Amino acid sequence: MPAAPVSVITTILVDIFIIFAAAKIAGELFERIRQPAVIGEILAGMLIGPFALGLIGQPGPALVSAFHDEEVAREVLNTIYEVLAEVGVIVLLFVVGLEVHLDQFLSVGRRAAVVGALGVVLPLLLGFGLISYLGYPQPAAVFVGTAMVATSVGITARVLADFGVLQEKEASIILAAAVVDDILGMILLASVVSIGANGGVSWGQIGLVAAEALAFTGFTALVGARIIRRFDAHLDDLRLRNGPFVVAMSVCLGLAALAGYVGLAAIIGAFLAGMAFSQARQRSSLLEQARPVYDFLVPFFFVVTGAQVDLRLLAQPSVASLALAVTALAVIGKLAGCSLGALGMSWRSVAVVSIGMVPRGEVGLIVAAIGLSAQALSPELFSVVVAMSILTTLIVPPTLNLIYRSQS
Amino acid sequence: MPAAPVSVITTILVDIFIIFAAAKIAGELFERIRQPAVIGEILAGMLIGPFALGLIGQPGPALVSAFHDEEVAREVLNTIYEVLAEVGVIVLLFVVGLEVHLDQFLSVGRRAAVVGALGVVLPLLLGFGLISYLGYPQPAAVFVGTAMVATSVGITARVLADFGVLQEKEASIILAAAVVDDILGMILLASVVSIGANGGVSWGQIGLVAAEALAFTGFTALVGARIIRRFDAHLDDLRLRNGPFVVAMSVCLGLAALAGYVGLAAIIGAFLAGMAFSQARQRSSLLEQARPVYDFLVPFFFVVTGAQVDLRLLAQPSVASLALAVTALAVIGKLAGCSLGALGMSWRSVAVVSIGMVPRGEVGLIVAAIGLSAQALSPELFSVVVAMSILTTLIVPPTLNLIYRSQS
Repeated sequence: MPAAPVSVITTILVDIFIIFAAAKIAGELFERIRQPAVIGEILAGMLIGPFALGLIGQPGPALVSAFHDEEVAREVLNTIYEVLAEVGVIVLLFVVGLEVHLDQFLSVGRRAAVVGALGVVLPLLLGFGLISYLGYPQPAAVFVGTAMVATSVGITARVLADFGVLQEKEASIILAAAVVDDILGMILLASVVSIGANGGVSWGQIGLVAAEALAFTGFTALVGARIIRRFDAHLDDLRLRNGPFVVAMSVCLGLAALAGYVGLAAIIGAFLAGMAFSQARQRSSLLEQARPVYDFLVPFFFVVTGAQVDLRLLAQPSVASLALAVTALAVIGKLAGCSLGALGMSWRSVAVVSIGMVPRGEVGLIVAAIGLSAQALSPELFSVVVAMSILTTLIVPPTLNLIYRSQS
Repeated sequence: MPAAPVSVITTILVDIFIIFAAAKIAGELFERIRQPAVIGEILAGMLIGPFALGLIGQPGPALVSAFHDEEVAREVLNTIYEVLAEVGVIVLLFVVGLEVHLDQFLSVGRRAAVVGALGVVLPLLLGFGLISYLGYPQPAAVFVGTAMVATSVGITARVLADFGVLQEKEASIILAAAVVDDILGMILLASVVSIGANGGVSWGQIGLVAAEALAFTGFTALVGARIIRRFDAHLDDLRLRNGPFVVAMSVCLGLAALAGYVGLAAIIGAFLAGMAFSQARQRSSLLEQARPVYDFLVPFFFVVTGAQVDLRLLAQPSVASLALAVTALAVIGKLAGCSLGALGMSWRSVAVVSIGMVPRGEVGLIVAAIGLSAQALSPELFSVVVAMSILTTLIVPPTLNLIYRSQS
């Protein structure tokens, strides 16, 4: 029972605590049942969100009285969640970029590029085809297809590490192909962001934005990496505590803002900043310092994304069957595309590589979140995409388990 | 030139980048001229804030069109800044709590307690007396007095480390006395938060809240520390990455929200969480992981606080002379109080201890920020307190320099 009227800031602080604690409790539970923590975080968001328990998303009396209107107060609260989620996802993509090994990538290069690219094209076409065929508008079909593209490298790597096979050739191919996936996914995302909610798809404009994104990516990754390799020694001369980390975070925020400003997704800037700094000699200390920031902020993205899923929609037979169909195509598209790319290896290697590429995760969820806020995706399709991300991720660990066990 | 209309999130992201980059550039410049980075951050806030360059604080077209009204949009933006600043200051106080060495504290215990307590009482009385004498309302006088209390332990420690005298007895006394300061400052803050903007000061209620704060502090520090010493080994059993850190941050956010909910300042909860976890065997890894989060988030508090200072007010002779008078009393009160507490030591030790206690910083700024938002402090008095914090901090390094040089 509060002694004084609870302030606006306290109201928001309570929500921040609930989001963080729920994410971490669910993450711990999922780790204990050998599932990725990130799925726990999404489900935690669904559970505490306004469509289920409603522990978050209620503006409360302080916010309502500060903004004189319940609808406005709710909008303010959602904007604050969105800011927290955005900062979280920027840190996430920065770390993903930082973890890209350009060298490792080049060693398994050609094979991984083919696996990655074919694994992108097929799910994209299948997803786009299905949603178009069902009569949804073209922007929705493009968003769903794009969300089906990118393999979740974090989840894949985690599963392979648990099996102790990270040094095997299949693992290298999967990791490198997942990077190709991420980059292609980013470029596709940059292109689809330019799609308005109501306007149709202008293929010319998509091509233009893809070219712009490709140029931005190439320039930042190559020139940025070169600049950083050249000047990284000077970063240690800074007097500020954790100088190199602080500079990297500034560049990350700056490129994220710039990307948003030129009409790309902000996270593309963050990813490129991370990829450029992955070439710095301070890379390992940057990763070490970025991880606690990641652990603190990234959960806000997944919980807030989960909280936007309307569970009542997924309970409708039509939406549920669509979710299953999209999931099936996401699995089949990835298996077929990656198997094609891995052709010529042993059947077991083909199986490991293609199954290892099945989980969809962060990037797909980001595409879905952007599609929802641009109103290109309906709440139904948004929920379908989130369900697809969760299901594709859940089926992989047991399947890989079967393959690795059948061998020994 | 943005290709598409810039979104709400991009607008805010640009502000976040400007705040962070300005803080770090100013911090680096100040470190280079051997002044505390924190002063650079406050001045950066003054510079980019709405009363000077206006680089932040402008809602921009996207926010205005989202909220249909410029005033509402500005209020939304300020609320977002406030949330970022609040999360930053919570992390700050958590780290300050984590750095408290209860053991070190007990070894120089009695002397430090006397130095700390007398150094609190005199500035409080002098500040309260001056502001009351000048005819300001009692709540304003209480807030100014409270803001004059707490020594900035970070700044003091930093200066002593630069002189390489952290192991000397004077340094131990200063550090321990600064902890006493912080705790007394927190209890005073908890008491003044209960003072309404318009209502007069109810001494009975202040006493009640002080008792409540003391109980909350004692219980959390003693029982919390005991619980943590008992169960800290189990924290390593968590499957989550950085499990102990994640649990500590959850407790920190939870106690901060709880403190706010029962009418105390949220940062008190964060400080107590830090103090309790300072007893955990994982203390040093907790500190290591908290520091990058600190470096990323804490600047938002100081820049946002600086941005609230109206420089035009400080340019008015009446406000400027009040700022100088308050600064003089803050210095005299601390010197006299701490000298009295250090009586019996050599004159040089007395000088080092009392001068080392002069810088005011984070806690004073927090008191001022709370006073401003509770409308107990006018913008003039708020600017006076910020100026006092900056001035008391700036004069200490050169003065200590003189003492340490005159000796060798």
